[in-house]
Amino acid sequence: MHARPAAGSLLGIEALELKDIQRILDSAKQMQRRATPLLRDKRVALLFYESSTRTRVSFEYASKMLGATTTVINASASSIEKGESLIDTGYTIMALGAQAIIIRHPLSGAPHLLSRYVDVPVINAGDGMHEHPSQALLDAYTILNHKKKLKGLKVALIGDIFHSRVARSDVLLLSKAGANVSLCGPPELVPDVACTLAESVSVTRDLREALEDADVIIALRIQKERLEGLQLKLDEYIARYQISADRVKWAKKDAIVMHPGPIIRGLELTADVADSERTVILEQVQNGVAVRMAILARALGVKH
Amino acid sequence: MHARPAAGSLLGIEALELKDIQRILDSAKQMQRRATPLLRDKRVALLFYESSTRTRVSFEYASKMLGATTTVINASASSIEKGESLIDTGYTIMALGAQAIIIRHPLSGAPHLLSRYVDVPVINAGDGMHEHPSQALLDAYTILNHKKKLKGLKVALIGDIFHSRVARSDVLLLSKAGANVSLCGPPELVPDVACTLAESVSVTRDLREALEDADVIIALRIQKERLEGLQLKLDEYIARYQISADRVKWAKKDAIVMHPGPIIRGLELTADVADSERTVILEQVQNGVAVRMAILARALGVKH
Amino acid sequence: MHARPAAGSLLGIEALELKDIQRILDSAKQMQRRATPLLRDKRVALLFYESSTRTRVSFEYASKMLGATTTVINASASSIEKGESLIDTGYTIMALGAQAIIIRHPLSGAPHLLSRYVDVPVINAGDGMHEHPSQALLDAYTILNHKKKLKGLKVALIGDIFHSRVARSDVLLLSKAGANVSLCGPPELVPDVACTLAESVSVTRDLREALEDADVIIALRIQKERLEGLQLKLDEYIARYQISADRVKWAKKDAIVMHPGPIIRGLELTADVADSERTVILEQVQNGVAVRMAILARALGVKH
Repeated sequence: MHARPAAGSLLGIEALELKDIQRILDSAKQMQRRATPLLRDKRVALLFYESSTRTRVSFEYASKMLGATTTVINASASSIEKGESLIDTGYTIMALGAQAIIIRHPLSGAPHLLSRYVDVPVINAGDGMHEHPSQALLDAYTILNHKKKLKGLKVALIGDIFHSRVARSDVLLLSKAGANVSLCGPPELVPDVACTLAESVSVTRDLREALEDADVIIALRIQKERLEGLQLKLDEYIARYQISADRVKWAKKDAIVMHPGPIIRGLELTADVADSERTVILEQVQNGVAVRMAILARALGVKH
Repeated sequence: MHARPAAGSLLGIEALELKDIQRILDSAKQMQRRATPLLRDKRVALLFYESSTRTRVSFEYASKMLGATTTVINASASSIEKGESLIDTGYTIMALGAQAIIIRHPLSGAPHLLSRYVDVPVINAGDGMHEHPSQALLDAYTILNHKKKLKGLKVALIGDIFHSRVARSDVLLLSKAGANVSLCGPPELVPDVACTLAESVSVTRDLREALEDADVIIALRIQKERLEGLQLKLDEYIARYQISADRVKWAKKDAIVMHPGPIIRGLELTADVADSERTVILEQVQNGVAVRMAILARALGVKH
Repeated sequence: MHARPAAGSLLGIEALELKDIQRILDSAKQMQRRATPLLRDKRVALLFYESSTRTRVSFEYASKMLGATTTVINASASSIEKGESLIDTGYTIMALGAQAIIIRHPLSGAPHLLSRYVDVPVINAGDGMHEHPSQALLDAYTILNHKKKLKGLKVALIGDIFHSRVARSDVLLLSKAGANVSLCGPPELVPDVACTLAESVSVTRDLREALEDADVIIALRIQKERLEGLQLKLDEYIARYQISADRVKWAKKDAIVMHPGPIIRGLELTADVADSERTVILEQVQNGVAVRMAILARALGVKH
């Protein structure tokens, strides 16, 4: 067991300094301009204990565009079923020659545990309800494509904050960068205590208050199953919190609308908002590949 | 939503002109002679909502042999489970950087729907009971390896025409090219109305009539589950319609026997027919890679 | 059907001559020193009818490090479900352009059957309770990294010999090379008849006797489900056969401890043994990639 993860690991936004964040975003900008086979002969393993399309494909394309060799390991088709521990799986993947491990896991903290044992960088591609740092970085990157700086911006996060690792990582990053974050949703999804997540974070139940003067609106995914568990009615949620064209008008004129995807039209946001010009959901996906190239280059110690 | 699909899309044989078909077959011939990394730096996504070995591997090898980067997205391990619509999945895959989408879907028309929304070429790798254009093209390619031209040939399609997208695409292509098509099977699998599929198509219940003077015999896959649904007895089907060595003799001496695979020996055809010299099932598979290279080069606007 | 498999096939240790084994191990040593893209433009298919992480990824990385194009075919997502026979699947994969087929199958003998029909080399990646030749080769390679030669060594195999294809291949290889093999475990897992597996093989129920003077200890995987089927109590197995630090002391001072993985700490071996310096389990995994590169180069007729 190591005192700390291998250099280049990306476990969460929490432990990242602002200058590290800046460096990744700068590198991503260069990557987006021109991807060169920096990682030729490098081997990257994608260890997915949860299904995923966009994050897995995004990391896979990012790896391949830099010339790396990838292998995807899905928990359902692997030794994991045979009772092998996460740490032994990690040891094995490292011994097989992987020089970086990208891991998604349903349990919060799994990437941190893994990183204490393996000697290669570990990249958290989402762990339980904890963090999803590459998503927060691509969100920051996308915002900076539209706004000059993060400092002083008002960012409204709407919906299921409680269960969302995206929300957690976004809030941590935005707060570090000096943005003001307004969290909004029903108490079941946005507990009062959420305001203690970071500095300059406030909680409101009133969507209008959250959106007023907002530069950025981030709608989060609502999982129907969870609402049922919480005895929260879907139509009530929609009535009070759905992002519609009328409600977007409460925000600044040049506010952008974001969503980590997958979206369900007519639930978190209306179809016309999804397709509107101020909505940058697909730009987020696109930027994700560049940001993940930067994360991979950082993990493997390669300068652009 | 676009008025028409992106150039280079291949949604079905129906909308294809004969000269387009000819161009693809010519390009495939060159591809088979020599594959060069025409598609280096191109990214192809394989979006499979239904399982598949031969079609998926064929497109995957075709992509890789041309130097393209591929990613396979299976519906069962993807956001699709989370309720994302086909169109939003398509948008996402495009935003991730895919420059062509190869899609297989259990619903007829799904590739057409997708193609109206995304800006990249969509290639139909089989949709419901509708079309399977790459299969029809590789079938035509294979026939042309053995016969001088399609025009005037007699092609017998035997078995489950009704549920078969292969049959539909084959019939459309063969008819466009001036071949005479004889469809044969029990009414449950070959409804009388099938003769209206295209010009020069006839329906018969008599296998001998169908095979007489045939240049090409195409046996189609029989799904046991479907026969049960139709209260059609397997042994009756075999007695009347199975392609056996004796029955092949009813056709022309130099007739070839084809099947889109996977075959079940002893059902649609006997084992000795499967292994006979006039049977070109494996040649079809082999040609499929070349034809799909041609389809991909066309989709990505690359001249050979 | 062929009289014999294609040259370069690796179906088991049984049919391999000692000089072939030596040649593969020599080639692996060179591969480990430096992997060059020997197999550029070659296409390798991985046909897995059983789930696997380490073997699949090991062969996949080995292929890619030599520049080959790989495709993975899992039985659950393939035509196999549609009732296609193993032989027809093999024909199809060959027709698709695969130049070597790596197969894992739950039925003993499946790779042998396949190899009689296809014209390309077949590599057995584990078949039922029969053989797992690449594992035995990497085990031999690993032993030779620590001991001067195999001849005259005492190797103790502990645990489930009966159900283990690894044990079978290990015993066959070690015996051919002149090592003395001691098999140890309860009668349900190590039947008396096991001593007839090869020359210089003995069976004992006494762990101390098996380990005494041993140069190499190979612990085998215990599957809990199987113990239950055999009415063998887990705690009894652990009490008598678990490899603990105290028991390792019964062996020679420089004895090494091996395990094919995945390990379950606290079952076949204790956690401190798993992590001890004399345990070379991860070295086995690492060597596996080099050994499989040598196997692939041999299969595809490429000299290093």
